[in-house]
Amino acid sequence: MSDDFTWRDHIVTLDERGLNTLQQAATIAVGDLQRPTGPRSDASASTLHDLIFAFEVCPEEGVGLERSLADLGSAVWGNAVVPSDAACVAHLHPPTLVASVVTELSIAAVNQSMDSWDQAPAATEVELHLVEWLARLITMPSSATGIMTSGGTASNVLGLTLARSWAALGLGVDVLKSGLPPESASWRILCSDQAHFSVQRGAAQLGLGRDAVVAVATTPTGVMDIEALDVALDELEKSDLRAMAIVATAGTTDLGAIDPLEAIGQRARRHNAWFHVDAAVAGAFLLSESLRPRLTGLADADSVTIDFHKLWWQPFNASALIVRDHEHFDLLRVKSNYLDRGDELEGMVNLVGRSLDTSRRFDAAKVFASLRAIGRRELATMLEHLVSLAHFAGERLSANGRFDVLTPPTSVMCVFTARGFSAGDLRAVQQNLLARGEMVLGRTEIKGVSALKFTFMNPLTTTSDVERLIALIDDEFDRITPEP
Amino acid sequence: MSDDFTWRDHIVTLDERGLNTLQQAATIAVGDLQRPTGPRSDASASTLHDLIFAFEVCPEEGVGLERSLADLGSAVWGNAVVPSDAACVAHLHPPTLVASVVTELSIAAVNQSMDSWDQAPAATEVELHLVEWLARLITMPSSATGIMTSGGTASNVLGLTLARSWAALGLGVDVLKSGLPPESASWRILCSDQAHFSVQRGAAQLGLGRDAVVAVATTPTGVMDIEALDVALDELEKSDLRAMAIVATAGTTDLGAIDPLEAIGQRARRHNAWFHVDAAVAGAFLLSESLRPRLTGLADADSVTIDFHKLWWQPFNASALIVRDHEHFDLLRVKSNYLDRGDELEGMVNLVGRSLDTSRRFDAAKVFASLRAIGRRELATMLEHLVSLAHFAGERLSANGRFDVLTPPTSVMCVFTARGFSAGDLRAVQQNLLARGEMVLGRTEIKGVSALKFTFMNPLTTTSDVERLIALIDDEFDRITPEP
Repeated sequence: MSDDFTWRDHIVTLDERGLNTLQQAATIAVGDLQRPTGPRSDASASTLHDLIFAFEVCPEEGVGLERSLADLGSAVWGNAVVPSDAACVAHLHPPTLVASVVTELSIAAVNQSMDSWDQAPAATEVELHLVEWLARLITMPSSATGIMTSGGTASNVLGLTLARSWAALGLGVDVLKSGLPPESASWRILCSDQAHFSVQRGAAQLGLGRDAVVAVATTPTGVMDIEALDVALDELEKSDLRAMAIVATAGTTDLGAIDPLEAIGQRARRHNAWFHVDAAVAGAFLLSESLRPRLTGLADADSVTIDFHKLWWQPFNASALIVRDHEHFDLLRVKSNYLDRGDELEGMVNLVGRSLDTSRRFDAAKVFASLRAIGRRELATMLEHLVSLAHFAGERLSANGRFDVLTPPTSVMCVFTARGFSAGDLRAVQQNLLARGEMVLGRTEIKGVSALKFTFMNPLTTTSDVERLIALIDDEFDRITPEP
Repeated sequence: MSDDFTWRDHIVTLDERGLNTLQQAATIAVGDLQRPTGPRSDASASTLHDLIFAFEVCPEEGVGLERSLADLGSAVWGNAVVPSDAACVAHLHPPTLVASVVTELSIAAVNQSMDSWDQAPAATEVELHLVEWLARLITMPSSATGIMTSGGTASNVLGLTLARSWAALGLGVDVLKSGLPPESASWRILCSDQAHFSVQRGAAQLGLGRDAVVAVATTPTGVMDIEALDVALDELEKSDLRAMAIVATAGTTDLGAIDPLEAIGQRARRHNAWFHVDAAVAGAFLLSESLRPRLTGLADADSVTIDFHKLWWQPFNASALIVRDHEHFDLLRVKSNYLDRGDELEGMVNLVGRSLDTSRRFDAAKVFASLRAIGRRELATMLEHLVSLAHFAGERLSANGRFDVLTPPTSVMCVFTARGFSAGDLRAVQQNLLARGEMVLGRTEIKGVSALKFTFMNPLTTTSDVERLIALIDDEFDRITPEP
């Protein structure tokens, strides 16, 4: 290596000079982390458009590191949404852990790629250790393992991909090789009407179509109604249709509801259907002794989605698909001449065989570093605090007199309406608070009912913060004129 | 927010206390970036397994940030593959840019999620600005735009997903809603026999199956043979099969070969097939005045894959799919009650409608920050240096007498064999160098010929480094006994 290149200091190297350069640059980057005064600035979409599009993406001569990072700070971070602000309560959009965030820097500096052992030797073992630990936490058998993916949608799609291959295998068909067999027209995926839309997206992606998804009714608390599931399964049988997979949700997006996993798992087995659990949200409950019992039945799943970038406070992206039997991944593997020849030295696992991705970042490192640093007990306490905030919000909203809570909160969300106000009014309140940069509030529609939504993701939020947010919303309703 | 929580300093906040905590942690993380002496340590797979699995993933009480990061440094980074080492030459596995790496920390600290405007207001504009700049660099019409994805495979799959929807639309079918129509059994995807295996994976994922991919022969230099393409298209017509998509490759994985894009684009138009170009590798040639002409015809594509995490030296993951017409994304969009209702204030774009992902990290930030910092001219010079290294390697290998270069290098790879040595011998040389931690060398098979491969990704590598690597390989061949 020569130090004479004019571009020497653009590239990360792990020698003394390189580490000094990186250290200085990291200090600058942290120093430029501007933030708006509230959960976001009051800049409009068109103002932001003009601001950002005024920058030249790739000037002929660079502006230099300091200037570039300073611009990013003022223009972008200064106009970001701030998930560590107590008034950022719209989505499953968490603030992040210090240990994870600084590990992101290390991940990028060393830049392992998880597709092959010779691009990620120790990293491969870390990822395997992490997913196998998670499988044991679920109390799955020792055959269980998993893979990291880029998100809950990707994990659900991978789970459904395995389900499809497995269903086809029952007909003697390798669907990845030969394509969907004619019988697949009768395949159905059952999930609750509160399941995440990625189930439909998965069905669409796999060639089955969204119409192949049967939405099973939910109870008023938002969990799958088992009687409705039984009726749906009976109707499929009568129509010569096949339940290819049943997807249970552990923690719905809006209500945080957890489907009755044991009962659903029994039906899946009885009907020879793949049992996938989308535990993207409530998978973190495994960490808490008091919350864990709600996940009884999770160990019966064939595949489970768990998002570390939700209630484990990891930066995007970090999700896992856990499978009950490592042999399920054989349904997926295709040899590659340059990447996964199958003639490597013993123990050199190429994870590309388990993944729908090829190059893939070492997201497991940040999860591993932060779980080790903080430990189970503290993480569980942080999570339990969020659940208690949702309870508290429900109580205070109900006590206020203006608001109706849709169903008592059981997770980190609280969904509510305002008496005498229409869907358009709720929209106005949410959009006004957003436009002025005072609150990033959730808004959704559940079974035709428009509602506002708190999603508590920030363990630093206090009950006083919650009271302040409710007062702010209350004031905003005072300000608008209800639609006639 | 209360500062009394015992977990106060685990969470990133952007106030003074939070930024100080983050700054200190970043300093520790950089300080712990250990590295092996060579391109990797000589630890075996089983040694690494035992080392990593000895750690408790999530102890009851955390070990603290310092201890956790120190362990990560010694166990994981100390046993990583080092892409900034000149002897790391196996894959499209780059060292990374300082500006990008420190921006990863900022991305994770602010944790925008690209699915909805209210989780990423300024970030949404940055991503749009970046992909539209790229579309203009390709000289696509002003209707062109794009989306960031997690990798070349994801970009190729998204391109093929759009192609499938478009083909179905021609039959009046919404394939995402209704599933594959019976006519889809006749759909074929054409690509060269040197195309990346993600084309096959895409076909498999979409329900068409790998068998729906028609591999078109390549010339000795590894580019698609246009006469063979014409024959293949004729044969499809005679068999009542339909070319749903033609995929050209700009920069094959092994030889870096660029298919004749203009000629292929003409065929795609003539046969009413979607024209996708996998320019994951050679897309970066757009930056260089001398290399750019090789991509003539790229602007005719309906969709283009470009990987920033290859020859743009971005940390994983950072890929883009560029589409010729923003209306193509309408083929994909599904409204979501909580995320993309379509009733937001003007200009609030929710990128989830363009993506197969939901939560998605702000990878565009690191690309934006580093391109602005360094500028086009310097980036082009770095890239041209890598191409010249591959040329140099080809000349020196040929001059050595022992080696045969498969085809003169045109990109950043150089593929070669050793006279009188079998596939097993090549394997032994590659695996020995890997096991001893002396070189991470590529090995592949092209049209049945086993070969070794250099992939030059590190702009700090010199011609002396290349000579040293060749000498090391030469010595290793001296050491082994050729298979009889």
